[in-house]
Amino acid sequence: MRISFVISSIFLGATILFAASGEELIKKAIDSGLKPIPVGNELTKITGDTKQNKLKIELGKKLYFDPRISSSNLISCNTCHNLGLGGADIVPAAIGHKWTQNPQHLNSPTVYNSVFNSSQFWDGRSAHLQDQAKGPMQAAQEMNASPEVVIAKITSIPEYVVAFKKAYGENVKIDFDTIADAIAVFEKTLVTPSRYDDFLRGNTKALSAKEQEGLNVFIDKGCTACHNDINLGGTMQPLGVAREYKFANIGGFKGDVNGMVKTPTLRNILETMPYFHNGQYWDVKDAIKEMASIQLGAEISDEEAKKIEVFFNSLTGVKPEITYPMLPAQTLDTPKPEFK
Amino acid sequence: MRISFVISSIFLGATILFAASGEELIKKAIDSGLKPIPVGNELTKITGDTKQNKLKIELGKKLYFDPRISSSNLISCNTCHNLGLGGADIVPAAIGHKWTQNPQHLNSPTVYNSVFNSSQFWDGRSAHLQDQAKGPMQAAQEMNASPEVVIAKITSIPEYVVAFKKAYGENVKIDFDTIADAIAVFEKTLVTPSRYDDFLRGNTKALSAKEQEGLNVFIDKGCTACHNDINLGGTMQPLGVAREYKFANIGGFKGDVNGMVKTPTLRNILETMPYFHNGQYWDVKDAIKEMASIQLGAEISDEEAKKIEVFFNSLTGVKPEITYPMLPAQTLDTPKPEFK
Repeated sequence: MRISFVISSIFLGATILFAASGEELIKKAIDSGLKPIPVGNELTKITGDTKQNKLKIELGKKLYFDPRISSSNLISCNTCHNLGLGGADIVPAAIGHKWTQNPQHLNSPTVYNSVFNSSQFWDGRSAHLQDQAKGPMQAAQEMNASPEVVIAKITSIPEYVVAFKKAYGENVKIDFDTIADAIAVFEKTLVTPSRYDDFLRGNTKALSAKEQEGLNVFIDKGCTACHNDINLGGTMQPLGVAREYKFANIGGFKGDVNGMVKTPTLRNILETMPYFHNGQYWDVKDAIKEMASIQLGAEISDEEAKKIEVFFNSLTGVKPEITYPMLPAQTLDTPKPEFK
Repeated sequence: MRISFVISSIFLGATILFAASGEELIKKAIDSGLKPIPVGNELTKITGDTKQNKLKIELGKKLYFDPRISSSNLISCNTCHNLGLGGADIVPAAIGHKWTQNPQHLNSPTVYNSVFNSSQFWDGRSAHLQDQAKGPMQAAQEMNASPEVVIAKITSIPEYVVAFKKAYGENVKIDFDTIADAIAVFEKTLVTPSRYDDFLRGNTKALSAKEQEGLNVFIDKGCTACHNDINLGGTMQPLGVAREYKFANIGGFKGDVNGMVKTPTLRNILETMPYFHNGQYWDVKDAIKEMASIQLGAEISDEEAKKIEVFFNSLTGVKPEITYPMLPAQTLDTPKPEFK
């Protein structure tokens, strides 16, 4: 009786502790730079107005899923940024045209919430999604299609031409910029709010006591130095702050000209293994411990890493429902696939 | 005045001719072995009861779209049988694991309406879709995954295990047969009724006069000798009836042990170029003319081929709406992708 009372009190105490400290934790999280995904007009300012952009979004979705914008007809945006797999591909380094592994052994970042990143690509070389979209289409080891081929494919398909005119106006020039724009307008809608956002907005019950405990460890360890703002990441940061990071372990990637690397978002992180820019870790706990050591000089115990992992569960967001697009039939004028 | 009256009469005559002969054409089509996609209970007998099979269909859809059932994590059923591209891949010969072209240079047949085929694969070696589904998963040049790897991947993902138990019962054995069954149950729902079916069921206005004219040529030329029944194809037929067909032109495929080849369905044919088992023709008119020559010893003029192509428009069916599946996150026990 006495023992069970004590045990009950401990469990109750733990629950009450986190419930009671929920508001403090929210404040602590906000103070450390974490932000929820905005709602309403604030969201629309970033992602665009989905009603107003409806035709561009529908068109962009088709292009996103259409493997014919690769030279081989085999690789679409969705191949490496699979909307069913957390927006990524679950392989260490992207594999594209002719089964070529990314020469820098770079892991495909998730497309979900990428609109909240301050720049795109691991080296941040694109300022926005429209510019980003042009990269993989042309890259020899990805989709391997020249702008001319992409434009010729799209403009040879009457249903695409009609869709561009409806979305961009009768006098639209269907060039590489416009094609990339439609893809980007669609990608901007791929945001995944989660219980974590409800929590930051004041609903202390949105996260379990264990998740709150994990968030608390996450903040106390200093992870929010880089993993902050809406995306818990998405900004360029130096890699190897506390101790030298050997970029050359796998692949030759060395970040941007200043050695800066884009911090990946932690949203949906438990769906997008493996981790690090080179996909070297499959266990997120290994990634947590190693990153804390490299960047913060902090030692994170197995138990602490496990707690942070529990918190990460709350970052798995609700994905927009996607009706799989039926792609328009091509014509005899459409350039044929090339496999070499 | 007189000239315009004559011209009007010709056009009017043509329209009236086909409108008037609509019912005769329906009878002629039915007599030549063509059948509409059944409806109601007759359809359910073939495709299964979608309400009763709901959980299996949802599960099978996930597996169909999940590239992790390939050894590389890169190739799903949908890669070669893309539901957005008429259920095919728009390349001459399938390309799979390690960018390997199908060694027999075989073109990926559409998955749509495949439930109506009397057998599966170009050589008809599978009697049904469940058996078919096991082929590409294992083929070294396709998904390259052993049954053991596929089973290990699926059973290491808790959400899949739960889904199998819900769909097949608590004591389900998640083996290769059950996995293939779920995929097949989903595939059986991929039927695409079109205006052509309405026509065959008596709605003479469902096909335009030109389409009816094309159907008439199609029947008169004898195409229905092989392209008959619900799928306008789907049965094994000898290839090279009227004159020798040189199988070895591209690839070494020679049909089944008796040299028989499965007649491809003509449903959605204008979406699934290129044509022939080896994908040698991009222009359906070339395929029509060549096939008539090989099989029927019939010469088909450019004009006649064009008329048949116009009829083919009516075979483009309404696709089932597919909500793109969100695939369950894997675990540390899930076998890692292999690229070699």
